Amino acid sequence: MGLTPIPEKGTDPLPVKIAIPVKEDIEIAASRIKPYLHLTPVLTSLAIDEIAGCSIFFKCENFQKTGVFKARGATNAVFSLAEADLLKGVATHSSGNHAAALSMAASLRNTVAHIVMPSNANKVKITATEHYRGKITFCEPTLQAREETLAKVVAETGSVEIHPYNDVRVIAGQATAARELISQVSDLQIIMSPVGGGGLLSGTALSAHFYGNNIEVIAGEPTGANDAYRSFNSGSFVPSVSPQTIADGLLTSLGTITFEIIRKHVHNILTADDNQIIKAMRLVWERMKIIIEPSSAVPLAVVLNNKELFKGKRVGIIISGGNVDLDALPFSTFK
Amino acid sequence: MGLTPIPEKGTDPLPVKIAIPVKEDIEIAASRIKPYLHLTPVLTSLAIDEIAGCSIFFKCENFQKTGVFKARGATNAVFSLAEADLLKGVATHSSGNHAAALSMAASLRNTVAHIVMPSNANKVKITATEHYRGKITFCEPTLQAREETLAKVVAETGSVEIHPYNDVRVIAGQATAARELISQVSDLQIIMSPVGGGGLLSGTALSAHFYGNNIEVIAGEPTGANDAYRSFNSGSFVPSVSPQTIADGLLTSLGTITFEIIRKHVHNILTADDNQIIKAMRLVWERMKIIIEPSSAVPLAVVLNNKELFKGKRVGIIISGGNVDLDALPFSTFK
Repeated sequence: MGLTPIPEKGTDPLPVKIAIPVKEDIEIAASRIKPYLHLTPVLTSLAIDEIAGCSIFFKCENFQKTGVFKARGATNAVFSLAEADLLKGVATHSSGNHAAALSMAASLRNTVAHIVMPSNANKVKITATEHYRGKITFCEPTLQAREETLAKVVAETGSVEIHPYNDVRVIAGQATAARELISQVSDLQIIMSPVGGGGLLSGTALSAHFYGNNIEVIAGEPTGANDAYRSFNSGSFVPSVSPQTIADGLLTSLGTITFEIIRKHVHNILTADDNQIIKAMRLVWERMKIIIEPSSAVPLAVVLNNKELFKGKRVGIIISGGNVDLDALPFSTFK
Repeated sequence: MGLTPIPEKGTDPLPVKIAIPVKEDIEIAASRIKPYLHLTPVLTSLAIDEIAGCSIFFKCENFQKTGVFKARGATNAVFSLAEADLLKGVATHSSGNHAAALSMAASLRNTVAHIVMPSNANKVKITATEHYRGKITFCEPTLQAREETLAKVVAETGSVEIHPYNDVRVIAGQATAARELISQVSDLQIIMSPVGGGGLLSGTALSAHFYGNNIEVIAGEPTGANDAYRSFNSGSFVPSVSPQTIADGLLTSLGTITFEIIRKHVHNILTADDNQIIKAMRLVWERMKIIIEPSSAVPLAVVLNNKELFKGKRVGIIISGGNVDLDALPFSTFK
């Protein structure tokens, strides 16, 4: 049950055939997580449709348990483990939403989640992880320190590592959001999600492929963290180096599995800058009265920047989450 | 179709018998507005229930057209007018939500809403009113200037004045929110709304009386604008003088009709200070990922301040609206 390693910079990301989830994996994930998670609503806004020039269906994972889609993948991964594998808990390193999601899933199975968090992690995220009884080990805020600390925690505890996105169980779980959306809205022509590590995007693309009727899959990525855009367009893995964006859920690099799925099943990746992201986020807050985090606003920002591509279409957008720090809102600095 | 005048300070508020809406008025209002407005959802939060110690059902009028319950009353009033009465439009003075609501209702009947607004009105509210094609006349920000300017506008245009709350048609419209809530949630024991001029509260109390099974009606009012609390407890009309509160929808005095209904059908009015209101508002934003305005958070603040009164009960709270100025959020100043 080990994880496929993420390739180092410059190496071929596809040295061997990579296993990706099949339709049955998504079916099983949907059944498995159903008792524990919300079937989130799809909301629409005539005002935003008028502005955008298309019909947008927002799949509201901000209303999901833990406030983010990541509860799906973490729950599917934890519930796919046998009782015996769970005795010593699960583990991950995460600065954010995966930490709370994995902690929640672990506590549902009466086991512990060991979470390695950087010392500069957001207080809101720490509180959420503690709320779900995650056991936090803090480390220096570097990728190296996070990986080394996690390896040590796993060795000491014997826990099972659950990667936040480069894991077929996690991807199959995230795929259930688009699967639901497609069952909730007929005749979608385009489906969109943001892309960071690619867990949500690759799951979305798989569900569009398995359940949709020629649905085009378009991702939104921040201009200041456009590694997936560059990987997708160059055809070879480009890591995320010093990303700069308000969309703090989208800082990570693609994984081997997520990149493989994205290459196969995603039709386009388009970017939006932070000012555009904040404007789109503000539009949703003001018109729809729902709280979405900056990462969730990237697809709408892409639509508003490329209206001709979406004109008159039926567009599904997965609102990835709603965990924002209300003490550090960006509205006054971006006009 | 003139309005019952609001009594001056010190005068008896009930010199004559005051007509209040009957059940049939609410039935007709519900049918009349149905094609134009949203049947808003009722949301719950296990996290907030745990904190509050009771089961709360939030009736989300923040998702209503124009972002606030006031669309109900304004639409009922405008649609109750004969075609001939509408030729010269409708009119009101309002610094806020009633302006946009009346403008929307008027535009649905292809007539004009003349809105007198104080020169210091919030930019967001002005934009919303203009969006619905309300014709704005600005005046000095005093009640006297507003009333004088409105009288002039009505005289010049021949339009029909629609008072924001002291009007049986408006009250019957606002009552439809609680009527829906009672049909959406079984066995409510308590129903709550904020109170400003009393339109929503009196409508809520009427629906609790007509449709509920011994539902207790409790209002929430800001400590800094507690004129309804004092009127209710003294039994005679106390005007709102220099109110000071973040809950900017609750600054006005009760009207003769609303006070009459509140005396008859409301069981209690409890207050919360601004710090408590902001904390309750923040709790809803963080846990439920929905945007509610400060006025809407007052009932929850009252619950959190008086847990023993609500312990274990099934409590309906009408979330009055979600129109906040994102450039002037209170979170950083209230901790």
